[in-house]
Amino acid sequence: MKIIEAKGNISIKRSIDTGTEDQRKSVQEILRDVKSDGDDALRKFTEKFDGARLSELRVSSEEIEEAVKEIGPEMMSIIEEAAGNIADFHGKQRRNSWFDTDEKGTLLGQKITPLDSVGVYVPGGTAAYPSSVLMNVLPAKVAGVERIVMVTPPDEKGRIPAAVLAAARIAGVTEIWKAGGAQAIGALAYGTESIAPVDKIVGPGNIYVALAKREVFGDVAIDMIAGPSEIVILADETGIAGEIAADLLSQAEHDVNASAVLVTTSRKLAEEVSAAVDEALADLPRREIAEESVERFGAIYLAEDMEKAVELVNDLAPEHLEIMTGQPMETMAKIRHAGAIFLGRYSSEPVGDYFAGPNHVLPTNGTARFSSPLNVDDFTKKSSVISYSEKALRENCGKIAKLARLEGLEAHARAVEARFGK
Amino acid sequence: MKIIEAKGNISIKRSIDTGTEDQRKSVQEILRDVKSDGDDALRKFTEKFDGARLSELRVSSEEIEEAVKEIGPEMMSIIEEAAGNIADFHGKQRRNSWFDTDEKGTLLGQKITPLDSVGVYVPGGTAAYPSSVLMNVLPAKVAGVERIVMVTPPDEKGRIPAAVLAAARIAGVTEIWKAGGAQAIGALAYGTESIAPVDKIVGPGNIYVALAKREVFGDVAIDMIAGPSEIVILADETGIAGEIAADLLSQAEHDVNASAVLVTTSRKLAEEVSAAVDEALADLPRREIAEESVERFGAIYLAEDMEKAVELVNDLAPEHLEIMTGQPMETMAKIRHAGAIFLGRYSSEPVGDYFAGPNHVLPTNGTARFSSPLNVDDFTKKSSVISYSEKALRENCGKIAKLARLEGLEAHARAVEARFGK
Repeated sequence: MKIIEAKGNISIKRSIDTGTEDQRKSVQEILRDVKSDGDDALRKFTEKFDGARLSELRVSSEEIEEAVKEIGPEMMSIIEEAAGNIADFHGKQRRNSWFDTDEKGTLLGQKITPLDSVGVYVPGGTAAYPSSVLMNVLPAKVAGVERIVMVTPPDEKGRIPAAVLAAARIAGVTEIWKAGGAQAIGALAYGTESIAPVDKIVGPGNIYVALAKREVFGDVAIDMIAGPSEIVILADETGIAGEIAADLLSQAEHDVNASAVLVTTSRKLAEEVSAAVDEALADLPRREIAEESVERFGAIYLAEDMEKAVELVNDLAPEHLEIMTGQPMETMAKIRHAGAIFLGRYSSEPVGDYFAGPNHVLPTNGTARFSSPLNVDDFTKKSSVISYSEKALRENCGKIAKLARLEGLEAHARAVEARFGK
Repeated sequence: MKIIEAKGNISIKRSIDTGTEDQRKSVQEILRDVKSDGDDALRKFTEKFDGARLSELRVSSEEIEEAVKEIGPEMMSIIEEAAGNIADFHGKQRRNSWFDTDEKGTLLGQKITPLDSVGVYVPGGTAAYPSSVLMNVLPAKVAGVERIVMVTPPDEKGRIPAAVLAAARIAGVTEIWKAGGAQAIGALAYGTESIAPVDKIVGPGNIYVALAKREVFGDVAIDMIAGPSEIVILADETGIAGEIAADLLSQAEHDVNASAVLVTTSRKLAEEVSAAVDEALADLPRREIAEESVERFGAIYLAEDMEKAVELVNDLAPEHLEIMTGQPMETMAKIRHAGAIFLGRYSSEPVGDYFAGPNHVLPTNGTARFSSPLNVDDFTKKSSVISYSEKALRENCGKIAKLARLEGLEAHARAVEARFGK
């Protein structure tokens, strides 16, 4: 792994795939078809893209029970424990409606309400991750969303991976449909004869899914469009090379576009990690992917001092940040931008991917500057509440009318004045 | 105003202007030019679209001082009082970072951090509203955003309306630039020689501004794309026709596409309001606009009973909802979707537009189903914090490794195992 003396700004921003003109057109056509032909269009595209001819679009309870059996009781109980941790952590994010009053009798507040319905996209094939089902569904469940609709493409025989179905049952999904790609997003956004439309769509997907989400954005809410995964490890001389190398590779194995970066103040550690990565790569099952990712987007940055190192990390605004310094809490205080922050050597990043409780759906590609992990707020919305008393309006009526007239909005002024017979 | 017997679902959804192919292309070209030519492109487009040849792009402190003088001390103090109310209400939305620990030494939490920088778009010409400056800037200020950059198109002489500059000074804008349209959005997203890029762009604008925001979404965060304004008033027989009519018109005068709707259980009130609207329209300065809006999108729905009426309101998911019933608080409890809810006859909607404190930037066109008023959360982001102790990892290491292997991610399993010399 290459070692770079860090001077000035660095960036791990990778260009996000925004699709070709052809892909955009194709997505628009698919969405149009689903809007007009509903279930028929879903069946047509599922046959075309997934090679499955479906008589029944909805996953049956028998299929789910079979999946649970296939996964087995030991694995089920591990998934349940992870789900419990995730539900606990997200439960702490729940917020109450609130209001405040003053002596004039004015009441102001925010009413917090869960969304009515949410759609969760789950990719098919090798990228079918039960952990992703838990992470996308449980915050909605905890928020109080009543209808949680999962869509996922079937294989050629019309089947869905058992682990995905099992996780969906544990998480409390209310409907599962065999549909993927842009057509599934269209069904969630516009509805079909079988599938009622939802208010928000979340979950990762390929470029067609991403483009479709972009197209329906506004008609429904969507989550952020996720880019490839990334980790930055910030370490001083106390870092342990073998552990750091293992954590870097756990990111690199995701995707050739994934990015694994070490920022350190210790030349010795830099050299040790570089060697340890090469060594650990040797017998990794997903070696080719990890190797290409390390080659293309991996780097060890050597910083002059911890202050400069922290600055570099804030420039990178990484999705995952591990802090392996003598005083990780103290170091964390200086971090402004990161999706999830892992403190100390026992907080290896996969702990957060699967088990600890915080969400693994995180802002990528520098968007941690302005975005948050998926959380309960994403599945609720606020309504402002305003209750003015006669006294309060009488006292402020003249000022409000003046502000309205300053903006040339006479009917606004007259509306408040109407209360006092003006 | 027409009276309709409400049967089944109703909707006030209007098709949102998503622009023509030509407009999209033109916006993409403008953005490309600003990205490559920076300030030169800004000057070029400002001359082309606003007719102003600017030597200096930035508004000077002298210009701001002049604006303050022009507005005068009385109006300044009213704007300051409104700003104080807005800052107070938003101050109550501020949230602390939090964490929770358990007896194994695990620490989990969320670190809340303000965005570094925010851009606020303020439209030019007749739509230049100082209240909009306060409502977009103050939540960012309260959130702790250090750099708040305002952009607004100048008139032919290169001037910005005094009320806008005065409001910007009161709200605490840190930079003001004379630039509008797609070019201003490009400058905020990509930066130019003079203007550093921002993390998020908020504020209303015309179709070019809206399309440009949609294009840069992902590189920076944006707020919702606002549609035309709307009000729904929910009233029983206790409603007062003249006041309801006045409030309906205060929405209708905004825009020919605005929508003003009354939902009531009282035929008598329906008829009185219908007559009162016609009467009040007669001498309104913006009569033509209000009349066309009432004609096209205005309606009085007569519902069988309060339960049906509430259902209708939830279908509409209005931007503004006034509740004029005998027990407004009780009625509110049944409302699931609304941007801002005004309770009782003294909570006329303009109270919220200008003065009370809650934000007037609200979800339109049914998006209150899944969106919130602009608020402090929009200007902060969360980072998850995960700190596992040796004990906690040792206890859960095997389960985490099993979950990783279930997903075929061997390097993830090895990363946690590396801590225990496996």
